[in-house]
Amino acid sequence: MKKPDIVILGAGYGGVMTAVKLQKILNSNEATITLVNKFDYHYQTTWLHENAAGTLHHDRTRIPIKDVVNMDKVQFVLDTVVSIKPEKKKVKLKNGEVPYDILVIGLGFEAETFGIAGLEEHAFTIDNINNARLIREHLEYNFAMYHHEDEKNPGRLNIVIGGGGFTGVEFLGELANRIPELCEEYDIHKSMVRIINIEGQSTVLPGFDPQLAEYAMNSLESRGVEFMTGAMVKECQADRVIYEKDGKEVEIPTYTTIWTAGVRANSIVEESGFEHNRGKIEVRSDMRAPDQDDVFAVGDCALIMNEQTGKPYPPTAQIAIQEAETVANNVKTLVQGNGELESFEPNLLGTVASLGRGDAIGDIFNNWKLFGWKAVIMKKIIDNRYLLKLGGVGLLMRKGKFNIFY
Amino acid sequence: MKKPDIVILGAGYGGVMTAVKLQKILNSNEATITLVNKFDYHYQTTWLHENAAGTLHHDRTRIPIKDVVNMDKVQFVLDTVVSIKPEKKKVKLKNGEVPYDILVIGLGFEAETFGIAGLEEHAFTIDNINNARLIREHLEYNFAMYHHEDEKNPGRLNIVIGGGGFTGVEFLGELANRIPELCEEYDIHKSMVRIINIEGQSTVLPGFDPQLAEYAMNSLESRGVEFMTGAMVKECQADRVIYEKDGKEVEIPTYTTIWTAGVRANSIVEESGFEHNRGKIEVRSDMRAPDQDDVFAVGDCALIMNEQTGKPYPPTAQIAIQEAETVANNVKTLVQGNGELESFEPNLLGTVASLGRGDAIGDIFNNWKLFGWKAVIMKKIIDNRYLLKLGGVGLLMRKGKFNIFY
Repeated sequence: MKKPDIVILGAGYGGVMTAVKLQKILNSNEATITLVNKFDYHYQTTWLHENAAGTLHHDRTRIPIKDVVNMDKVQFVLDTVVSIKPEKKKVKLKNGEVPYDILVIGLGFEAETFGIAGLEEHAFTIDNINNARLIREHLEYNFAMYHHEDEKNPGRLNIVIGGGGFTGVEFLGELANRIPELCEEYDIHKSMVRIINIEGQSTVLPGFDPQLAEYAMNSLESRGVEFMTGAMVKECQADRVIYEKDGKEVEIPTYTTIWTAGVRANSIVEESGFEHNRGKIEVRSDMRAPDQDDVFAVGDCALIMNEQTGKPYPPTAQIAIQEAETVANNVKTLVQGNGELESFEPNLLGTVASLGRGDAIGDIFNNWKLFGWKAVIMKKIIDNRYLLKLGGVGLLMRKGKFNIFY
Repeated sequence: MKKPDIVILGAGYGGVMTAVKLQKILNSNEATITLVNKFDYHYQTTWLHENAAGTLHHDRTRIPIKDVVNMDKVQFVLDTVVSIKPEKKKVKLKNGEVPYDILVIGLGFEAETFGIAGLEEHAFTIDNINNARLIREHLEYNFAMYHHEDEKNPGRLNIVIGGGGFTGVEFLGELANRIPELCEEYDIHKSMVRIINIEGQSTVLPGFDPQLAEYAMNSLESRGVEFMTGAMVKECQADRVIYEKDGKEVEIPTYTTIWTAGVRANSIVEESGFEHNRGKIEVRSDMRAPDQDDVFAVGDCALIMNEQTGKPYPPTAQIAIQEAETVANNVKTLVQGNGELESFEPNLLGTVASLGRGDAIGDIFNNWKLFGWKAVIMKKIIDNRYLLKLGGVGLLMRKGKFNIFY
């Protein structure tokens, strides 16, 4: 009898953790495990804003697949997924095709620009190592251009962040630390630089504890960030962004608009004909697609309702990692053909948002509110726990964050 | 009686050394010394190619004026010279005007593009800290863009250097060391990058010892540099450069053309109505302009014929520094109104060209030919001697190059 082919698409939090777990709980003679990813590395999406600001090198954020996946047990295919054909049980790649018996879709998110004019062409998004690194360079390049040009162009020094959600706020925190360094490097006075956040709601971090959100805004404002709340981005051009507030349109000259205000599941999910809820597969409690008994979805491609609140669980790394555990266990059960599939039970530990070096806010373990250095330490503990889980002590030692002083 | 006003324009090698020497040999009650410069720092023009390549930080190359000029003895004016009016004995600045009794013109060079189409708009030149820093950023930015763009654009990774003279060759040497580092940083395979030198003559470093020039080409070629000798740049556009060789036009896609093939004296000299020889003041043996008894020129603004060869002395830092000595002595003589003006006697020590980390060529002390580590050490000795002369042991310790191993 042919061994079943387990194919995992994507090596983000959900995909890579599924692979790592499966290589432990399945014997090589039980199934063939294939992991497909377009880079030969996994990266910590939740650290990309630091790479983009230039406060952390991207090599700290990414982890070679071969360092966490056992290449004797898992076949790794370096390729880009083009489409999934569930009716043929095949995945089309840029350079080939892979058949599957059991599929795990962990293809992550892409930016959602809601059709706002010019965003797709002119705004940056913090999606992956390549564009995080480019944002870092773009910031530096514009600072370098400022003194090179005879006619001083304030657009070089205005940085606009669209969206005051989690990513936006964490990125603002890093920028607030990074900008004084860039000013020194390029002989620019700090007062010439503007960091502007545009958020549609009346506060940043809507949904977060209001006192902590206020703390975050105060902390960032004291380091020079300007908040335009209740304002909507209307249009982005190469050299400006236009927003509307109180019925009036305002134009900010800028070469650097970074859009953090929306993400959606990878559009391959929708285009491949799966039943979806705004692009995500609304999975059953065992993490399988509603119409496919051999297809799992994980992370940002999966949608699970929190029955207590009636809202979906947020698309966080924490949930993706927990989902991967359930997915791996259920894949094993399907392969071995015995027992019941388990249901996903999220264990919500809470959320910590970094505000740059030395400051953070957190709401964890059911309403324990933290800010300042305690939240900073908690954030590092969370990040380090993941590394330990993913790659053991060796990986933790190489990539962990241990400086508790900032 | 009013003290005479000595005004020095420019704080390059010639200007700053004139100021430093004058503050030593003149008493404050004898004259007022004013130094005008558009930056508040002096920089070592001969190190700028390292800043441009990104192999040396620009703060090593520049020296705050206040660290070498005694601000109690010399008035420093941070401003840009617009024009000189010798008939009124005044210098027009962007934000004012300074009268002079004795003037020293040390306004340096500017790039000469010989009317080649598009060079002025699209090519970089290695003239000052601002554009050296920008070249460094521009290289990195294009490497970062390469992996960000879905359609791979070889123009991002092609670097074209126009001119195989001294600056061009030294810059090639630094690039040859820097590119492998950039490749690692941006996940680009070294074989994707091209460093192309276009030189009109049949060899680089025309006029230098042919064997040493050949050594230089071999050293650079072994590190991946391509030489197109006997080729002329015909046109530069934002995304390509076109050169002609053997009657055929060749196009290279590139976003990075760096023009090192021509310099001329600051055009203010010509525009201010001085008698000039291709933009430079052909000074008398006492370094004064032929038609002006109270105007000296120094460095790249001055032209002195070598009577043995019938050719002008080359526009080097070495000569500028020696000229400054003569200028300062003659200014003192004019101020004190006694004695003869001395004649400039160059002391040609020879030339050393760096080829990047760990390699160099030199032709010094009348035909002593050096290459490899001996030339590297000699180059550092020359650079360190200048720092000692300019700012004493303190400056040498801060800015000197002491690593003799590379």
